[in-house]
Amino acid sequence: MPPPAAVNIDVGADAVDDNSSATTPEFLTVLGVDELRAKTVFSGGIAAVGLSDAFKSKSNTKKPMSKDFTYRLTLESRSRQPSPLKQAAQYLSRKGMISLGGGLPSSAYFPFDHVSVGVPRGDLFSESDIHEYAHNVTIGKHDMKEGTSAYDLSVALNYGQGTGSPQMVRWVTEHTEIVHNPPYQNWACVMTVGSTSAFEMCLRSFCNRGDFFIADEYAFCSAIEAGRGLGINAVGIRMDSEGMIPSHLDEVLSNWDEKARNAAKPFLIYLVPTGQNPTGSTQGGQRRREIYALAQKHDLILIEDEPYYFLQMDEYISPNAARSNGNSNGSAATPHPKNLDEFLKGLVPSYISMDVDGRVIRLDSFSKVIAPGSRCGWLTTSSKICERLMRHNEVTVQAPSGFSQAILFKLLDEHWGHGKYLDWLGYIRKEYSARRNTMLEACEKYIPAELASWTPPAAGMFLWFKIRSERHPAFGKKTMLEMEQEIFEAVIDQKTLLAKGSWFFAEPDGQHPDVYLRATFAAAEEGAMVEGIRRFGNALRISFGLPVMKET
Amino acid sequence: MPPPAAVNIDVGADAVDDNSSATTPEFLTVLGVDELRAKTVFSGGIAAVGLSDAFKSKSNTKKPMSKDFTYRLTLESRSRQPSPLKQAAQYLSRKGMISLGGGLPSSAYFPFDHVSVGVPRGDLFSESDIHEYAHNVTIGKHDMKEGTSAYDLSVALNYGQGTGSPQMVRWVTEHTEIVHNPPYQNWACVMTVGSTSAFEMCLRSFCNRGDFFIADEYAFCSAIEAGRGLGINAVGIRMDSEGMIPSHLDEVLSNWDEKARNAAKPFLIYLVPTGQNPTGSTQGGQRRREIYALAQKHDLILIEDEPYYFLQMDEYISPNAARSNGNSNGSAATPHPKNLDEFLKGLVPSYISMDVDGRVIRLDSFSKVIAPGSRCGWLTTSSKICERLMRHNEVTVQAPSGFSQAILFKLLDEHWGHGKYLDWLGYIRKEYSARRNTMLEACEKYIPAELASWTPPAAGMFLWFKIRSERHPAFGKKTMLEMEQEIFEAVIDQKTLLAKGSWFFAEPDGQHPDVYLRATFAAAEEGAMVEGIRRFGNALRISFGLPVMKET
Repeated sequence: MPPPAAVNIDVGADAVDDNSSATTPEFLTVLGVDELRAKTVFSGGIAAVGLSDAFKSKSNTKKPMSKDFTYRLTLESRSRQPSPLKQAAQYLSRKGMISLGGGLPSSAYFPFDHVSVGVPRGDLFSESDIHEYAHNVTIGKHDMKEGTSAYDLSVALNYGQGTGSPQMVRWVTEHTEIVHNPPYQNWACVMTVGSTSAFEMCLRSFCNRGDFFIADEYAFCSAIEAGRGLGINAVGIRMDSEGMIPSHLDEVLSNWDEKARNAAKPFLIYLVPTGQNPTGSTQGGQRRREIYALAQKHDLILIEDEPYYFLQMDEYISPNAARSNGNSNGSAATPHPKNLDEFLKGLVPSYISMDVDGRVIRLDSFSKVIAPGSRCGWLTTSSKICERLMRHNEVTVQAPSGFSQAILFKLLDEHWGHGKYLDWLGYIRKEYSARRNTMLEACEKYIPAELASWTPPAAGMFLWFKIRSERHPAFGKKTMLEMEQEIFEAVIDQKTLLAKGSWFFAEPDGQHPDVYLRATFAAAEEGAMVEGIRRFGNALRISFGLPVMKET
Repeated sequence: MPPPAAVNIDVGADAVDDNSSATTPEFLTVLGVDELRAKTVFSGGIAAVGLSDAFKSKSNTKKPMSKDFTYRLTLESRSRQPSPLKQAAQYLSRKGMISLGGGLPSSAYFPFDHVSVGVPRGDLFSESDIHEYAHNVTIGKHDMKEGTSAYDLSVALNYGQGTGSPQMVRWVTEHTEIVHNPPYQNWACVMTVGSTSAFEMCLRSFCNRGDFFIADEYAFCSAIEAGRGLGINAVGIRMDSEGMIPSHLDEVLSNWDEKARNAAKPFLIYLVPTGQNPTGSTQGGQRRREIYALAQKHDLILIEDEPYYFLQMDEYISPNAARSNGNSNGSAATPHPKNLDEFLKGLVPSYISMDVDGRVIRLDSFSKVIAPGSRCGWLTTSSKICERLMRHNEVTVQAPSGFSQAILFKLLDEHWGHGKYLDWLGYIRKEYSARRNTMLEACEKYIPAELASWTPPAAGMFLWFKIRSERHPAFGKKTMLEMEQEIFEAVIDQKTLLAKGSWFFAEPDGQHPDVYLRATFAAAEEGAMVEGIRRFGNALRISFGLPVMKET
């Protein structure tokens, strides 16, 4: 695949007129961040406390307060006490104080002088360009003392607070306000070691063994698995091409029979609203509003796990359709947002952006847009719940890796800033669009429509195949799981690995009449991806007893 | 403080004769690692599986198998299922396999070309030397494909297994065998995001709400706090200058009254055997053997949390004593091990090294010897328990940060190797010895012996002051906690922060007749440390109504 042209989503003149203001803006924008920061004192020393409130714009103070959902917390979460050692940090701000208190090692014994990282220069975002023209950002050991940075290794590599570093809390708070602007006053962000950990913290904070939580009928298997160990099983809600079906959610909750289920009515709902894993479905704005209204009706806590939020793509147009419209090269037209404002406005609204009650816990992750190995993300919810989750961090993971935090800070805050990060997201979005299009075109070419169907995903990394198992020779003779295994193995025999739908059952013992397989267009190179789909098509033909396609 | 001379613990001729062998060595040594590696095939690609067994020396196969302690696991731990997606990785080893299975993002979209880190050159370990003569180690994006390294960013920054990367598992496995050589066959290591997280995993894996675990009467407060949220409280065992007193442990366990306690007899014991936090006490070899025998008698699982293991120091000799022996400069004599063999043999034996049963879970950490912000450590125990803890990782933290793993690998494996890492530990040990000596000398100078007493610590970072509260004017009128608070505040008034003994109560509601304060010699610079102790001495005088010392 030739490297695509760098994407440059300029903050155009229109955007400036719309969003920036010499006086107080209505809400925080990319251009308003410098002004906001100029008004606040930033303190980011060793184990410094830095809560979101210090980094939010004044406009938040005009919003109403959230409801208080602490009554939903488990005994475990309510029992946690603040760490006395972390509390003692308050004394350290007194002038002339000598600390012989905390067991923080001296940074003199960190065997690292600096960390230097090659990152994209300007808009040169492709891998080959980053390699050829890398811009080096360097984190020194004592940059803060030397006044050259707001963060350095002497701080990042020492112990920190359960919120994560003030440097990163500031950045994610600003980003969250720019992109989502939660409609209540007392929202806050806490850094996490990734959304897998954050979701498990939420399970432990809101559910006890024997409780249920609500999920899509096909759901992210680590979330289901995390629950299984805790004895907190999922109730799967039926899905359509936009994910969870509100009427079924309402039906399940309205008719919950505590005696028959031997469990209280569930109140925790887990969603991946954008580019859902495994189905690739994306909930539109209307769908989200309906589900949020049901969350209000049934008083739910709604966990929105959004690793793929920025991998929202333009509508897919089949090359056949495009060709018939005179697009001679056969590739789908992918109109691209002209500027940041258009990019942000074009995103499907998040649950946190419509969360007037404070009942949403949004999980953000760098895994799909920067790198999974950063093991760094954040969550956003009302400050009292944040405080409890932060206490959980304190006695478990403590905080994300200081290497991760320092490198992300250098890239996101000092090198890119919010605007250029959004440009990067626009680039990634375009890349994944192209990958999706490649896979979809291969599917149209190689997969017989009579054996499998799929919906072009509007976001994410996944394509979800519904297998026409009723046409399978073993239909009626074998169980659905047996047919799935047979087809899966036929694909393996063709040296291609897909994921089985049954791996994602929210309720392993539930009714699942259909066979599904999941493919990702995230990982393989273009040629391998097309070849993998060709092999999958052949495997289906073999499994269904049809003649194999000739090489083309 | 002038930079100390670099420490060079050579692998001397004697050590070579002792440990290295042209044929099969009896146990793994630093010099045997290359030979061991030459015999094994290493595979460390994206999300590759790498278990300790692949990296242990043949000599392990001659050892007996451990006992099976899985019957001690909680329902939570026993319920965890392997992740189907991670299991599917097995197919990827087949030649020509195309994966459209796992949702692993393409490394083409990681915005990092390389990470370059300034680390010590040769034996130039002081901070100023590292700054001036830094050796740069560089982790490229595709070093593995290019054949220049066993690890690179394309792998480290993608998803990995719950064990941590094979690259780091190999290194910690070798290190553990070199240093501890567990006496049973089926030991293994799993990477953790630090020992705080690892201990909390252990609590959840072995105890249920309402259970008790055993700890020192003064214990690491995050461990106690982690238990509190889970409703798993500590039973504090009395301590002397070597830490936990075996006879009291035996007494508590032998006389455990399930009805009176409303809880089963505890079987999980948490120890920081070396440089214990907060008391600074170190259990000698005989003490450990006694406690291990009790662990066998009462069938305990023993968690040895050893962040300070390598901060074992030489015996402290007071400058007064040294002066009287003709040591004119007044500093204590600190004989230093001559070579690696002497260094390793001089270390107090670890519990895992005497663990014939496989009942020890050893927690190792880089926090105190490399940097806390690495959020990376490992645990060592029998392979079946390791497997369960690895499953726990899978659905929570997943693995340590890829930045941390890659940087540690570059430093520890490729740049230093095992021998030079041990040299570094020797250097750190010497530095902390000097810091301890400075603090102890200041104590002898400034703290009235009639108001406080202390035992020179043999390891770690902490000095533990027993306050002679019976001489305090408020003695008998105020509670012990009130006197502690008054003295703590008197020290704060002198602009010095110490930690209160009560922060470390294993049993907050237990009997604590004495007042203690903890100081650390890890953090402050030498001058500040001496000044802090001087202020502490004055605070004590003020609080006890004695005249304040004149400046000297």
